[in-house]
Amino acid sequence: MFFASDNAGPVHPEVLTALNRANEGYAMPYGADDGMGRVRTQIREIFEAPDAMVHLVSTGTAANSLALACMCQPFETAFCSAVAHIHEDECSAPEFYTGGAKLTIVPCAVDKMTPDDLRASIAAEGTRGVHGPQRGAVSITQVAEKGSVHTLDELKALIAVAKEFDLPVHLDGARFANALAKLDCTPAEMSWKLGVDAVSFGGTKNGLMGVEAVIFFDPKQTWEFELRRKRGAHLFSKTRYLAAQMEAYLTDDLWLTSARHANANMARLANGLRQIEGVSFLAEPDANMVFALMPRAVHKRLHDGGAVYYLMQGELIGDDPDETLLCRLVCDWSISEAQIDQFITLATG
Amino acid sequence: MFFASDNAGPVHPEVLTALNRANEGYAMPYGADDGMGRVRTQIREIFEAPDAMVHLVSTGTAANSLALACMCQPFETAFCSAVAHIHEDECSAPEFYTGGAKLTIVPCAVDKMTPDDLRASIAAEGTRGVHGPQRGAVSITQVAEKGSVHTLDELKALIAVAKEFDLPVHLDGARFANALAKLDCTPAEMSWKLGVDAVSFGGTKNGLMGVEAVIFFDPKQTWEFELRRKRGAHLFSKTRYLAAQMEAYLTDDLWLTSARHANANMARLANGLRQIEGVSFLAEPDANMVFALMPRAVHKRLHDGGAVYYLMQGELIGDDPDETLLCRLVCDWSISEAQIDQFITLATG
Amino acid sequence: MFFASDNAGPVHPEVLTALNRANEGYAMPYGADDGMGRVRTQIREIFEAPDAMVHLVSTGTAANSLALACMCQPFETAFCSAVAHIHEDECSAPEFYTGGAKLTIVPCAVDKMTPDDLRASIAAEGTRGVHGPQRGAVSITQVAEKGSVHTLDELKALIAVAKEFDLPVHLDGARFANALAKLDCTPAEMSWKLGVDAVSFGGTKNGLMGVEAVIFFDPKQTWEFELRRKRGAHLFSKTRYLAAQMEAYLTDDLWLTSARHANANMARLANGLRQIEGVSFLAEPDANMVFALMPRAVHKRLHDGGAVYYLMQGELIGDDPDETLLCRLVCDWSISEAQIDQFITLATG
Amino acid sequence: MFFASDNAGPVHPEVLTALNRANEGYAMPYGADDGMGRVRTQIREIFEAPDAMVHLVSTGTAANSLALACMCQPFETAFCSAVAHIHEDECSAPEFYTGGAKLTIVPCAVDKMTPDDLRASIAAEGTRGVHGPQRGAVSITQVAEKGSVHTLDELKALIAVAKEFDLPVHLDGARFANALAKLDCTPAEMSWKLGVDAVSFGGTKNGLMGVEAVIFFDPKQTWEFELRRKRGAHLFSKTRYLAAQMEAYLTDDLWLTSARHANANMARLANGLRQIEGVSFLAEPDANMVFALMPRAVHKRLHDGGAVYYLMQGELIGDDPDETLLCRLVCDWSISEAQIDQFITLATG
Repeated sequence: MFFASDNAGPVHPEVLTALNRANEGYAMPYGADDGMGRVRTQIREIFEAPDAMVHLVSTGTAANSLALACMCQPFETAFCSAVAHIHEDECSAPEFYTGGAKLTIVPCAVDKMTPDDLRASIAAEGTRGVHGPQRGAVSITQVAEKGSVHTLDELKALIAVAKEFDLPVHLDGARFANALAKLDCTPAEMSWKLGVDAVSFGGTKNGLMGVEAVIFFDPKQTWEFELRRKRGAHLFSKTRYLAAQMEAYLTDDLWLTSARHANANMARLANGLRQIEGVSFLAEPDANMVFALMPRAVHKRLHDGGAVYYLMQGELIGDDPDETLLCRLVCDWSISEAQIDQFITLATG
Repeated sequence: MFFASDNAGPVHPEVLTALNRANEGYAMPYGADDGMGRVRTQIREIFEAPDAMVHLVSTGTAANSLALACMCQPFETAFCSAVAHIHEDECSAPEFYTGGAKLTIVPCAVDKMTPDDLRASIAAEGTRGVHGPQRGAVSITQVAEKGSVHTLDELKALIAVAKEFDLPVHLDGARFANALAKLDCTPAEMSWKLGVDAVSFGGTKNGLMGVEAVIFFDPKQTWEFELRRKRGAHLFSKTRYLAAQMEAYLTDDLWLTSARHANANMARLANGLRQIEGVSFLAEPDANMVFALMPRAVHKRLHDGGAVYYLMQGELIGDDPDETLLCRLVCDWSISEAQIDQFITLATG
Repeated sequence: MFFASDNAGPVHPEVLTALNRANEGYAMPYGADDGMGRVRTQIREIFEAPDAMVHLVSTGTAANSLALACMCQPFETAFCSAVAHIHEDECSAPEFYTGGAKLTIVPCAVDKMTPDDLRASIAAEGTRGVHGPQRGAVSITQVAEKGSVHTLDELKALIAVAKEFDLPVHLDGARFANALAKLDCTPAEMSWKLGVDAVSFGGTKNGLMGVEAVIFFDPKQTWEFELRRKRGAHLFSKTRYLAAQMEAYLTDDLWLTSARHANANMARLANGLRQIEGVSFLAEPDANMVFALMPRAVHKRLHDGGAVYYLMQGELIGDDPDETLLCRLVCDWSISEAQIDQFITLATG
Repeated sequence: MFFASDNAGPVHPEVLTALNRANEGYAMPYGADDGMGRVRTQIREIFEAPDAMVHLVSTGTAANSLALACMCQPFETAFCSAVAHIHEDECSAPEFYTGGAKLTIVPCAVDKMTPDDLRASIAAEGTRGVHGPQRGAVSITQVAEKGSVHTLDELKALIAVAKEFDLPVHLDGARFANALAKLDCTPAEMSWKLGVDAVSFGGTKNGLMGVEAVIFFDPKQTWEFELRRKRGAHLFSKTRYLAAQMEAYLTDDLWLTSARHANANMARLANGLRQIEGVSFLAEPDANMVFALMPRAVHKRLHDGGAVYYLMQGELIGDDPDETLLCRLVCDWSISEAQIDQFITLATG
């Protein structure tokens, strides 16, 4: 019963098979291998973007930071929600990679910015001339950080605000597949057709060892990206092993199958939890993650029964069995229905 | 007949086996997995350094840059040879990670600095007070960039110069195993016993997919290193797969066996080349790499016969068959004696 | 009737006299002039801090950024109010000088943080381990940005919070003299006796051409500061002219006399404005600056009469004469009572 | 007898008069003062460059670093001579301002690069693709660092090399006036007519307190420059005092008169020194500076007689009176013929 993170589950067997298959003979290093060419073609086809720049890196933070470094000057500020991963969970990697650009924090009720709040934040930044930072890129996380998925209309409205100010848009898609599975649309419909300029396209949280793609729909900064990647020490020599993973991921819809599976697992989990008195969710668990408030007594049963997940607020030990503690539960692609049912049984008591 | 790079060969089968084995169930992410603990213990034992800081990253440039960032202030300058990888081949990643420190280039005849040149370079940097950069770390590459290996006495003499000025010493050991195999000493004898403070301990060029260890013998900067690694986007979530590779590498001397094999391959290759008229080496091929000057006619035969390697100076097409062109030949762990013999046969003509 | 900025008034005649006096013969450059020695002694005496590091720079942004660069690592975050000059008005110079550290914005009702808000902000930053930035320095502006002056008790309470978390404290004293004049205490009582570690001690807004001192009460980072200053291109060659200004400023209490004069001017202005219907202040104008809400009709009369100041919110042209528009009014040391009375007469209508 | 630095002499009286004159009433801050507009017009006229970007800063290091930051990406390397001020005397400010770009050191016999050496250095940097830094701007110092002045033909030849590679050219003109006085040409002839893209136009070493202009002949990066200047904390609030100095400097050819005077002083000094046995010069003292090798006995007489200058190599105390020690002698605008003659008399013994 492991719900701590989709970073904690195993790699999909198809991916390991691909690594074994890729391990034959010699391959040119530094992105000149055949596999990297095939991956580039796959992503361009999947995104219906024949000219897109496609590069691979090994961490989501690298994908986000390098993308933003190509989109923001050091004297600009990027806009993101108060709970954005780039703000809260990357130890200032975006500030490092951009050479010291700011992040302007847009308030958010749970994990989605509203267009009005985004507009107000952007408008407020542009009023001090040379004294303040200049307006830079807008970054949106999809799946959002508390588990909700922006609808296409919600994305459209946020992007429209960015475009009012002529700002580029970055999509942090560490869980791109899970969002797409939820929305049941095409990758193009969730990205460039809405005006997204760059996507961090995650693989690691959905069954890869550590592979993310960075996609720019306008390829004019390709060379700059490559230089910044190398300079950030993120150019692998043996790129064939990154490429092999991503190729397997994109073949026969493995990425979508895995994401749908994880989402379905979460739906099953959420349905179970909803039946339990005193349980509520911070946001609707649209994808494979939920932030749940549950009474201490429930947590205690789960913990004693061996369930693993993160407590985000509150302490397991305490006097009041009804006090609600906030936890995060994530379903990875590999979790079994049996484990979920066991978890719910425990939680129900 | 692939001699282009030790980055181009396959991963050792033991390493793939270890990855398959590691792919069971859930593991805590971000370095909290059991495998990472085992690797730390292994490296401390191998280096006879029970308190050493040990962390894993995925590229050699990351290892070098993060190590130097912990050893150099932005207003300092690090000393390295004119052909050092950190100077020539990392797209200024050390400058990026240190926040803009300089590299002072010490002249070198081939690929080794002399103690006198190092001393002169260090002495010259400390004469301008606040106007010039301050003296920072000394970085030495072992195996050096043109294929020679510093003897322990040579290392000792260089490090003594650094210590005259009270400067910390970094060893870029992207091919640490190959150097150790050549010198037939212990890891401690080639590092902290000489006064080395930090080692970039390579695995990638010797049969791993992309794993390097950074070792600091004084662990006081462990937390700073972890923060800089995260901020550089080099903290993997699924560290178990880095750990599994390094663990397999260090088990049953796989790292040394592989390096000895690669070195022996190079010796066989070098012996063959020495018999050919007009062939000479920039430096003694002490480990698994040689920079060879060979007549154009030789290159042409090799090229037509399908041998793959980099021409560093000169053009394959040209009038003079006797003109010598510089090439780099590298033996990876997997190359067969048959391929070497085939190469020599072709070269001999 | 010029109330736009205390940066817009003339330099005090004593300061020009000092510059003329300093312009005799040769003086050693780069801080080795006698004048710089005298200034250092003066400041140490005035602050009762015989060991303090004292350096001069030419802009307040340089003072703040260099101070913070010595107090914050790149992977840390500094805490300041939502309207702090370092956040809003320095085009990310602190981020630049610290090598990419963050600023965490503490909410503030007007221009002062409360201890509880500061504590909550600091506490919230320390919960994500290596994923989030680490807690860095706390920066407090005195005079605060909307014109209020923290009482000694208010400063004490904020600094106590910083010390709970063992964080260093920076005081942005661009208007240090005006605050001191208000509080009628000693420089030591408003700084190190409360636990302040570093002060940006302003001179420019109070009658100098462009001179600010940076004071660290613990001198251990003196050399680092000098290197960072040079590297930031803020080491003047002809330091005697900075020193001469600061020396004149500190001689015979010129700095305090000027500040008291400016504060008294503001009190006269504020008293006048209070009589006018529809006028209110964002904060109590404790020093030489007020943010005033005034009806459009009042602004219109002032503007037509030739008064100069900044409108911060709202438009001079508009339908509703009673709509209140926000403006900033600053009294510099040189403004005359006659001008203030003329302004009030105009405003009163 | 003060020959230590042209930074050590007094400010020209005309400049102080201008400061006194500028100190009337209120002036809009941050470059919006009338004086700044007049300076811009003056420089555009003097340089016959009606569209040029013109900004003022207070140090030569700021001028150079900000100019280079607008001309070099962080992943590029700028080319300069081994003795360039930007390399040797700015504590890595160019590396700081560019966000970590490299400087590639072109060898130079004394203080001038040859076109061939420059070409070889540029050519060598462009051969490693993404692994090495990319070719960036070329920076030339005029007056060069050991006192020689590039002829127009020499500049032309160096710039032609830069243009072969399509690289922008920066002229570090900390002593622009002295060079111009030597060459007796127009500012345009020594800059944009040769292909120079940006000039650091010095004033401080030629009689100002601390004012340098940065000139870009193509104004497209004006806004970027302003942002980088503010972010570097080099935007003065009271710009009228920088403008007043530069305006006085450019009025009635004060800048050229002062430079001619300093150059003539140096010629008188050099002529005297040439008569003394055992004295030689590193480079022809074309402007107002000489690096002279003189026997210890000569130095001793000068030192005992009260002459002030820097010994660059060697010790005043020593056994051999004939040993030659290297010193630097600089004539500022204010030095008198009497002092020079006194110096020569002492030196002659």
